[in-house]
Amino acid sequence: MKDQYDVTVHPMDLYGLIVAARGDQPVDCLFENARLVNVFSGEIESRHIAVSGGYIVGFGDYETKERIDLAGRYVLPGFVDAHVHIESSMVAVSEFVRAVLPLGTTTVVADPHEIANVLGAEGIEYMLNEGKKQPMNLFFTLPSCVPATDMETAGAALDAEALAPFMANPQVPALGEMMNFPGVIHCDPLVLQKLELARNAGKPADGHAPGLSGKALNAYLSAGILSDHECTSRKEAKEKLAAGMHIMIREGTGAKNLDELLPMVNPLNAHQMMWCTDDRHPDDICRHGHIDEILRRAIHAGLPPVIAIQMATLNPARYFRLPRIGAIAPGMRADMVVTSDLNALAPERVYAGGRLAAEDGKMHPDIQIPVPAPCPSAIVVDPDRLDFQMPAGTKKVRVIEIIPDQLITRQQIVSIRLESGLALADPASDILKIAVVERHQGTGNIGKGFVKGFGLKQGAIASSVAHDSHNIVVVGTNDADMRAAVRHVVEMEGGLCAACDQSVRAELALPVAGLMSMDPLDTVRQKLDRLIAAAKAQGGRLADPFMALSFLALPVIPELKITDQGLFDVNQFVHVPVFVD
Amino acid sequence: MKDQYDVTVHPMDLYGLIVAARGDQPVDCLFENARLVNVFSGEIESRHIAVSGGYIVGFGDYETKERIDLAGRYVLPGFVDAHVHIESSMVAVSEFVRAVLPLGTTTVVADPHEIANVLGAEGIEYMLNEGKKQPMNLFFTLPSCVPATDMETAGAALDAEALAPFMANPQVPALGEMMNFPGVIHCDPLVLQKLELARNAGKPADGHAPGLSGKALNAYLSAGILSDHECTSRKEAKEKLAAGMHIMIREGTGAKNLDELLPMVNPLNAHQMMWCTDDRHPDDICRHGHIDEILRRAIHAGLPPVIAIQMATLNPARYFRLPRIGAIAPGMRADMVVTSDLNALAPERVYAGGRLAAEDGKMHPDIQIPVPAPCPSAIVVDPDRLDFQMPAGTKKVRVIEIIPDQLITRQQIVSIRLESGLALADPASDILKIAVVERHQGTGNIGKGFVKGFGLKQGAIASSVAHDSHNIVVVGTNDADMRAAVRHVVEMEGGLCAACDQSVRAELALPVAGLMSMDPLDTVRQKLDRLIAAAKAQGGRLADPFMALSFLALPVIPELKITDQGLFDVNQFVHVPVFVD
Repeated sequence: MKDQYDVTVHPMDLYGLIVAARGDQPVDCLFENARLVNVFSGEIESRHIAVSGGYIVGFGDYETKERIDLAGRYVLPGFVDAHVHIESSMVAVSEFVRAVLPLGTTTVVADPHEIANVLGAEGIEYMLNEGKKQPMNLFFTLPSCVPATDMETAGAALDAEALAPFMANPQVPALGEMMNFPGVIHCDPLVLQKLELARNAGKPADGHAPGLSGKALNAYLSAGILSDHECTSRKEAKEKLAAGMHIMIREGTGAKNLDELLPMVNPLNAHQMMWCTDDRHPDDICRHGHIDEILRRAIHAGLPPVIAIQMATLNPARYFRLPRIGAIAPGMRADMVVTSDLNALAPERVYAGGRLAAEDGKMHPDIQIPVPAPCPSAIVVDPDRLDFQMPAGTKKVRVIEIIPDQLITRQQIVSIRLESGLALADPASDILKIAVVERHQGTGNIGKGFVKGFGLKQGAIASSVAHDSHNIVVVGTNDADMRAAVRHVVEMEGGLCAACDQSVRAELALPVAGLMSMDPLDTVRQKLDRLIAAAKAQGGRLADPFMALSFLALPVIPELKITDQGLFDVNQFVHVPVFVD
Repeated sequence: MKDQYDVTVHPMDLYGLIVAARGDQPVDCLFENARLVNVFSGEIESRHIAVSGGYIVGFGDYETKERIDLAGRYVLPGFVDAHVHIESSMVAVSEFVRAVLPLGTTTVVADPHEIANVLGAEGIEYMLNEGKKQPMNLFFTLPSCVPATDMETAGAALDAEALAPFMANPQVPALGEMMNFPGVIHCDPLVLQKLELARNAGKPADGHAPGLSGKALNAYLSAGILSDHECTSRKEAKEKLAAGMHIMIREGTGAKNLDELLPMVNPLNAHQMMWCTDDRHPDDICRHGHIDEILRRAIHAGLPPVIAIQMATLNPARYFRLPRIGAIAPGMRADMVVTSDLNALAPERVYAGGRLAAEDGKMHPDIQIPVPAPCPSAIVVDPDRLDFQMPAGTKKVRVIEIIPDQLITRQQIVSIRLESGLALADPASDILKIAVVERHQGTGNIGKGFVKGFGLKQGAIASSVAHDSHNIVVVGTNDADMRAAVRHVVEMEGGLCAACDQSVRAELALPVAGLMSMDPLDTVRQKLDRLIAAAKAQGGRLADPFMALSFLALPVIPELKITDQGLFDVNQFVHVPVFVD
């Protein structure tokens, strides 16, 4: 266990820190002539910063073993991502660290919601263990909604009793986003028990309440939920802020709220705000960055740099009660970002626990990133028993209509192509087959339906990433290619695949719970590019058909979705038949 | 146990709150047309505020049992005093509440340092129990320095083991001010154990480090201490703030730092600051007020009202991690101050836990203030064995010289009046006798010496309030009146007394640990006025000779002090003889 997870620095370490701070023995390193961005005073201060034993021990002149002259460069506290699903980057924890640490992120508060829906407590333990090995700070909130819904077959169910053993862990600062806001508002005792668990441990409960307003919001907040990262309009964010929520301004890949919410930040309310990415895909991290990108854009848009940096450092550390993190001051962990220009904010050097972790965007060769530990894939599917045939009831079917760049869908009723009593895909009209293959429990469940919007003219694409239960979802122009695609996903022990004429055209293996690769982020990005190109070659017309695919099995976002148990009408909150009169 | 002390609202109460917030049943009271000072948003908002079960459950229109039209008056969260010694007001907890609650203070974080030095754990328990009965929120930090020093005989010694049973108590938000900064800096294991105790409980440790700077400050902070209320200059406060300390700006009776520190507060650093009174005497509270007075003065001096109010509400609640306190928002305890003018800031109505507690500065008759429970006085002195004779060694003696309005003293060497081999007071030269009579353990210890500055021409004054061990301290022009004064203090079971010609001229009984009266604050104030008048009639020339007296036995403030074990040279940190060659 690394010290920074614990409220307590080990007594012997504490002794060492105090002695070093006194100046009674040389410190490890003195960073001279820094322009310190001081998040406490709100000022930029010329300082020498003394570091020893991985912690900052003082400002001033110290006898030192090593000197680094920063020659007036800025030193900022390392950045904190207040809410992120590492699974969404599709890489293992180690590779996520390798991607974001050089960008100045030295702490993330990750919600292992996806892996927990696949592997339950085993998934949380896996992430905690991986997190402890890394050269930066990884905290994990406890997933509060496993399973996410009752309308699908998930890999696990975690009630308050199952979560309790994790709650005392110092690596766990909070209960994870409480998506089940109807459960809170209607006093579902199983939901309230989870909130109590957090409160009894003196830890906050993160919220997740898109669009919640008025009395329903009041009820949600009366339960003691403290934050929200789902605000998509200033009006929504202002209501939630005024009602006491900590607002995490999110700029991810799917959901981008920065431009909308930034204008509401001011010096009198910034203490209540922080940044997060929630879900950020490999391409986005590689091309644009992580929290550093949010800071650049916020500062460019006119937010005073000190406020932007407070929101990336001190504010999340305070909210999550993370001791010794989020600032540069005596007793704080020496997580520091060095940059020459506070507007361009390119992290030239990143120090984590006092060690030079990265320089000019590259990990320092002395920093050991551990090889990701193996993890069960949880793909329990017999590929020889995949049957995508759909005996026709009537000629009319419900079709899921995709709206580009949105998670919501619409329902259409269309006439379908029939052959030998079977309903078939109709690529000419962009009516494709979609199926969700249960992969956790070997039930053999396959939910089947139709979807419009992918545009594939041939072949199929499949994915074991399918929020939130992460069954295997497949879309295709014909049953044989759907089988081939799913078969390959099973053979890879999870992953993404594009198949055509029963041969694999592109692939990305995700053997960690069927969600994460063992490859570096950049490799994953390249494989994703090839997958998207393959889908385009098959006629696909979505910018990222795999992302669209991964949200079609999420039965909490309107209007029509599909689970392993069949089509689901989210507005009526019931399963519905494919065929209509 | 009242809910507000606990992180957890009782599940049944939580259920009631959520149901009320939903609007499914009428709320208890709707405060209509409020101008809410919203400490989250930093804005003043027109709101209806719904209250039920003692908590705020929502903003908006609600069906309600009772309506109160505030007609545009301002509603502020109840004020928090972040650090106060209730003992310094010389009244019992109940009477303190009766004095400050009508002034808008609905929460105090009190440090029972004085009573703990007299009664140890029993004193802490007494305060916790008294606190629980009150119609406002009383939190207590755990005294970290009992005894305050080894150079005197105190009533108790509390090590980490003795404090441990209290640390989990939800009424205890922190370890109390760590005055023993040398112990921290030099890694005294007994001191570090107390800091560990707080950290293991996830609670902050308050600091107390007057003038500490540079590497010594760095060492103190590396130990994890988080706040300071002892800053007397902007330079000191700026250094401590930049080094990460939460700054409690103190405006007490003895120490007044508001005017000096106020100019440094700005929107970028205010999140790190709060208000406190530390020690405020009855006269001050009656005439000027409490936190409300600080707010009036800060706002009058130009601090934006919202920032001043954040520092009185949200900031201390966050620092001490007090759930459901410090703001007006759904789920928060309904502690509210109503006022018509944000600049004059007269608390017209004060609501505590949703009940009207006070109106126009007077407690509401429906609010029951409990009669203070009896408490041991801990006065173990045989008045027949008081011997203040001082056989003369040489003719020259060390004299404690008082500096008016300061706690520090100087040492003078003077020639003394001798008679029959005894050294006598010399009122004509303002050289009086001073003695400290040990009162806790019946040792019979009497430390004796001389003091200059009181100006008494006749009689004596005595007090069982004598920081920090609170032995009985007496100053007099002759032994007989000193005996009479101390005898009366013993007979009152603690208190203050002025005696002349062996008769009592004025008195204040302090039977609660020899520190606190059972009388109302205003009665105590009147008795104090009479005591001061009596001392003046005896020739006294200090504005408040009893306050001066109470600090002469504090052997940690330079230069020369006196304990029950004799004269103490604080600079050399050793006991020294009265007589010099």
